[in-house]
Amino acid sequence: MDFSSFLTSLMTSFIIFVVLMFLFTWLSRREGNEVVYYPNRILKGMDPYEGSRRHTRNPFAWISEAMSSTEADVINMSGVDSAVYFVFLSTVLGILFLSGLVLLPILLPVAATDPGVKFDNTTSKGAFNELDRLSMGHVQENSLRLWAFIVATYWVSVVTYFLLWKAYKHVCKLRAVALMSPEVKAEQFAILVRDVPPAKGETRKEQVDSYFQSIYPDTFYRSMVVTDNNKVNKIYAELEGYKKKLARAEAIYVESKKENPEGIRPTHKTGCLGLIGSQVDSIEYYNEKINETIPILAAEQKITIREKQLPAALVFFTNRVTAASASQSLHAPFVDRWTVLDAPESCQLLRNNLHKGFYQRLIRQYIIYFIVFLTIFFYMIPIGLISAFTTLDNLRKLLPFLKPIVEQRAIKTVLEAYLPQVALIVFLALLPKFLLFLSKAEGIPSESHATRAASGKYFYFSVLNVFIGVTIGGTLFDSLKSIEKDPNSIITVLASSLPGNATFFLTFVALKFFVGYGLELSRVVPLILFHLKRKYMCKTEAEIKEAWAPGDVGYATKVPNDLLIITIVLCYSVIAPVIIPFGVLYFGLGWLVLRNQVLNVYVPTYESNGQWWPHMYTRIIAALTLYQVTMLGYFGVKMFIYTAVLIPLPIISFIFVFICQKKFYRFFQSSALEVASRDLKELPNLERVYRSYLPPSLCDEKHEDEKFEKREDHRLDDALNQASRTISSV
Amino acid sequence: MDFSSFLTSLMTSFIIFVVLMFLFTWLSRREGNEVVYYPNRILKGMDPYEGSRRHTRNPFAWISEAMSSTEADVINMSGVDSAVYFVFLSTVLGILFLSGLVLLPILLPVAATDPGVKFDNTTSKGAFNELDRLSMGHVQENSLRLWAFIVATYWVSVVTYFLLWKAYKHVCKLRAVALMSPEVKAEQFAILVRDVPPAKGETRKEQVDSYFQSIYPDTFYRSMVVTDNNKVNKIYAELEGYKKKLARAEAIYVESKKENPEGIRPTHKTGCLGLIGSQVDSIEYYNEKINETIPILAAEQKITIREKQLPAALVFFTNRVTAASASQSLHAPFVDRWTVLDAPESCQLLRNNLHKGFYQRLIRQYIIYFIVFLTIFFYMIPIGLISAFTTLDNLRKLLPFLKPIVEQRAIKTVLEAYLPQVALIVFLALLPKFLLFLSKAEGIPSESHATRAASGKYFYFSVLNVFIGVTIGGTLFDSLKSIEKDPNSIITVLASSLPGNATFFLTFVALKFFVGYGLELSRVVPLILFHLKRKYMCKTEAEIKEAWAPGDVGYATKVPNDLLIITIVLCYSVIAPVIIPFGVLYFGLGWLVLRNQVLNVYVPTYESNGQWWPHMYTRIIAALTLYQVTMLGYFGVKMFIYTAVLIPLPIISFIFVFICQKKFYRFFQSSALEVASRDLKELPNLERVYRSYLPPSLCDEKHEDEKFEKREDHRLDDALNQASRTISSV
Repeated sequence: MDFSSFLTSLMTSFIIFVVLMFLFTWLSRREGNEVVYYPNRILKGMDPYEGSRRHTRNPFAWISEAMSSTEADVINMSGVDSAVYFVFLSTVLGILFLSGLVLLPILLPVAATDPGVKFDNTTSKGAFNELDRLSMGHVQENSLRLWAFIVATYWVSVVTYFLLWKAYKHVCKLRAVALMSPEVKAEQFAILVRDVPPAKGETRKEQVDSYFQSIYPDTFYRSMVVTDNNKVNKIYAELEGYKKKLARAEAIYVESKKENPEGIRPTHKTGCLGLIGSQVDSIEYYNEKINETIPILAAEQKITIREKQLPAALVFFTNRVTAASASQSLHAPFVDRWTVLDAPESCQLLRNNLHKGFYQRLIRQYIIYFIVFLTIFFYMIPIGLISAFTTLDNLRKLLPFLKPIVEQRAIKTVLEAYLPQVALIVFLALLPKFLLFLSKAEGIPSESHATRAASGKYFYFSVLNVFIGVTIGGTLFDSLKSIEKDPNSIITVLASSLPGNATFFLTFVALKFFVGYGLELSRVVPLILFHLKRKYMCKTEAEIKEAWAPGDVGYATKVPNDLLIITIVLCYSVIAPVIIPFGVLYFGLGWLVLRNQVLNVYVPTYESNGQWWPHMYTRIIAALTLYQVTMLGYFGVKMFIYTAVLIPLPIISFIFVFICQKKFYRFFQSSALEVASRDLKELPNLERVYRSYLPPSLCDEKHEDEKFEKREDHRLDDALNQASRTISSV
Repeated sequence: MDFSSFLTSLMTSFIIFVVLMFLFTWLSRREGNEVVYYPNRILKGMDPYEGSRRHTRNPFAWISEAMSSTEADVINMSGVDSAVYFVFLSTVLGILFLSGLVLLPILLPVAATDPGVKFDNTTSKGAFNELDRLSMGHVQENSLRLWAFIVATYWVSVVTYFLLWKAYKHVCKLRAVALMSPEVKAEQFAILVRDVPPAKGETRKEQVDSYFQSIYPDTFYRSMVVTDNNKVNKIYAELEGYKKKLARAEAIYVESKKENPEGIRPTHKTGCLGLIGSQVDSIEYYNEKINETIPILAAEQKITIREKQLPAALVFFTNRVTAASASQSLHAPFVDRWTVLDAPESCQLLRNNLHKGFYQRLIRQYIIYFIVFLTIFFYMIPIGLISAFTTLDNLRKLLPFLKPIVEQRAIKTVLEAYLPQVALIVFLALLPKFLLFLSKAEGIPSESHATRAASGKYFYFSVLNVFIGVTIGGTLFDSLKSIEKDPNSIITVLASSLPGNATFFLTFVALKFFVGYGLELSRVVPLILFHLKRKYMCKTEAEIKEAWAPGDVGYATKVPNDLLIITIVLCYSVIAPVIIPFGVLYFGLGWLVLRNQVLNVYVPTYESNGQWWPHMYTRIIAALTLYQVTMLGYFGVKMFIYTAVLIPLPIISFIFVFICQKKFYRFFQSSALEVASRDLKELPNLERVYRSYLPPSLCDEKHEDEKFEKREDHRLDDALNQASRTISSV
């Protein structure tokens, strides 16, 4: 690629972005689209077109809005996790901006005015000369000018340390404020207890109650034993399905009355997919089914609560300090019994994981680390196998009915060329889901933790495969050979391949931000999907609402992608400083677009009070260390005899991580008592706290108020006292 | 050394032991010696010669007594720490016994009947042929007989895992029982708070009180701020010195009355060392001094409490569960503020370390690790310098008055030969004290923890220098050269040097147990010292008591020595199984002798409730891993092609450690709430709990009962309320 084609691709991307931005301005103001562009505001009961927003035709209005919003707005609209994401974005933006401020005016002239090495030697294929003049590759070996690059390497590191330290402190404050909020949050009154040891002659419920009653005689409220809900969930899902279908059938019936005053009662066939079986009246049929299922559900609920208790429980306390302190304390002398931790929010509890035993969790974790390791390093093998297997000849043999299509020349060519790529694309699209599945299989008890674990795995995958893979890429096998000879040479190989690939990554970053953020902002895909669904599928209000439900921000893939960009930009920052403005643009634009999306569109499904931060922090520092080691290698390649002055850098990074984690990290694992001891604005309604943790499938249909009376009655019943108390309170 | 000289040295040691044992039997039954042989019983108010012990002339009576004592006896007489030491001894004994049971009957015949390699090749100088026939060195290279040794290697490992697991569980139980004891132990009601952040406009005391009052409104009792006691301690020590001297002078006066009814009032000179200055009447003089010092002390106490408060405190709670839970919980969002931990017993509190800041502790720790590293690896350098400096020529120049002595031929020869050795011996004798000093300088808050830290350092020193040093020893420089060429060869070098040194270590172990334990049992040195002191120095009862005070068991040096023996015996167990019986004898005899000493002699000064165990456990496992790695190397030296079957062993060890530490270790760091929640036999007297933590120099002279009234009075005083309350309660 030469310079002009690079500019062309850059311009194309930019134009796409501008077009998408105008599309957004136009579409977001059209009637009926507000549920796609402002769902978060609508769900929070706010006017989607606040003020005169609707009437401005200014396509940049959203920018000034995003700029003028404060951190408090973000926390109000989208929670602490989103605020932490913006701290992350602005920290990275700050790092790149401050680096660029010093590096661009100093390094570019230093590199450009160097007599330079012969171009033919330094540029690998695919690089272009105009930019190469501006990079470190252009400076002669062991030139004194390299001192400027050494200083630059230090400057970038120092800026990173400084801003990360400030950010960590700031996030700590955000988390503290969230945790000391005077609102009653159910999860602050509960702890999660796992590995309840086998009991003799008493139910789990009795066992848990008596255990915690004796340790916390004054502050123990009650416990909720985790049950095996698989069967009851299935019945509940069935019931909910019937209810939905009944509502749909009724809506169709009402609709039909508009044309025909009598209306046509909808019918369907009861067999597979509604294609076979006897024709029935849908409304009657579903009503009947619902009436059939309700008692079955009630019976199963009773059995579940009484007989399917698992060795895990949620324990509720009457105040926050005790809960916070209990979640941090060792309860039994053996750590593999009565393990405790902070209760996650009810909505993010992975209930199927709670009862998994201590050693099972350990073993699962290591098995999954091993699978992830295999996935990261050998994912090409199954894809290769699949593409080998799906050659046209094989397809023809196995699926003979495809023969007429496959025989055609044009299709044949296309298929042969793209089948392996298709396999790769499918794999990459499914990867985040696969990693999330793996992380959940580790036995992690909360959704947010599983998401972070998956995001971490995805980060390692992308850094190893995209960055290091592409960099060493072209000459992979040659490189492997030389690495085999001398394992220490991996840094040199990586370092010497870097400059040649600078332009590839420039294009990559540019494409990523212009096209990606354009699509994000304009929400073209969700808009089309929503209109299609509304027109052809949705009959009831609930279905329409479901069609525009905006979902989560999706930090699980957003964060590792951002981290990959940081890694790339940091690693190239000194070698080819021209990449820095692109990095600044990426994170600046990201900040603006995401600010708009977070305030208006996405609705977070859970809140981890900033536990994302240590995850991001560690990976930024990992990127920084990779950068420092790469620079060590690259200065070595440049035969610079003072390269050793860079050796302190990775050591400083290590000390910095050590101190930061030591000082800040524990607060992200559990709540500080000082914070939890703040006053609440009202006495907590503990019954409500307790009920918020009931799985929906175990909530019965009757009115809540009845419960209290019912429980009192049951207390008289001695024989089944314990079990029945549990049931009635559920 | 040939076989007969080995036997001679063995027999000599054995005879020394038997002589010392008879000496013990005879001496321990003589009038006036009971304070040397049964001080622990006397201090506990028991009859030193319980039953008919005194009248038996059976020299083995102490053995049957030791054998019949139970673990409960040990805990009663000497605490949990001693019981844990016996668990350690019996576990090691079990490991060696079970190993020997299988290894001796199998490996000795296998080795002895092998056609064998030429003796000249395998035996290094100093080894002897008779024993060499019985070792693995005698088996031919790549012989199938080596399979027996492979199996043996596995057997020793499996036995170790099994017994260590059982022991860890048992120690956990001991600790749990100790912690759940219904006795009121002051340290279970307190936590130690460090890194109190700087306060604005309030005293430390107010700050600590209000902080914990707000977190624990119901269970906070009161706090004791750590003060800078250096000056008050000095005055207190002066006062105590005068009191002692007064008592001594009075005793001399009373004594003199026996001969002369008037008595001679003792006098002394007031100047340096009582040699110069004016002659005064001692009793009058000291009385005067005491009366002078008491008000000075009282004034200094007030100043200390009011003005010398440091950023650390002891906080007392009204129940054990809250204290146990508080010591494990994060209190402030930043980990470097308000750090908490379990309060150690008052007597083992290192008060000078408490106020050291978070980062200061971190930095001190790493600096001291570095110093220890230097000490371990380069201790020969200063010793070499000292011996070079103290050559006779130098001595003559620097200390000319020594000239006539040094000139004599005999003395000259001896000095020249032994000066370096003397330097080494002095160094080795001072090393444990030096390491304890270093460990205390790390900022560790309790004596027992510092002792463990010093013991760990001593273990690494002895394993690296004695074991590995002696093994590679003779050919050290050759070895270093080959290690330099190929760093991986260190294992091979170690392994191939092992067999030649087997006999050295056999002698080492044998000497160690016969002579060492004989001296330990007979207590010849303390006995002589006691009689000398009583005759020539002691005048008062208190001084006599001080003269026979038995002191601590001294686990700080005992444990690393035992661990060194385990390391040696384990490493040789398969190579030269004849070492196993010696190991069994060492630990068996050690068990018997120490049992006697612990029950009758030593008085522990503090109790850590078994925190020694994880320390011992880790090092036994480290010894096992060293053994496994050495065996891997040695089988490699033997060109055995199936050596690889041993590779799983170190991995299994690693997993074993991981699981053990995960399951058990946390309970040794802090108390489990389940344990702390057991009922007490009486309501705790919190005032007494609080007072037990007052340093003696801050306790005033008046009667305790007055305090309560005094405090009530002071409460009325508004102006100085806070400070005066503190003072009056002290």
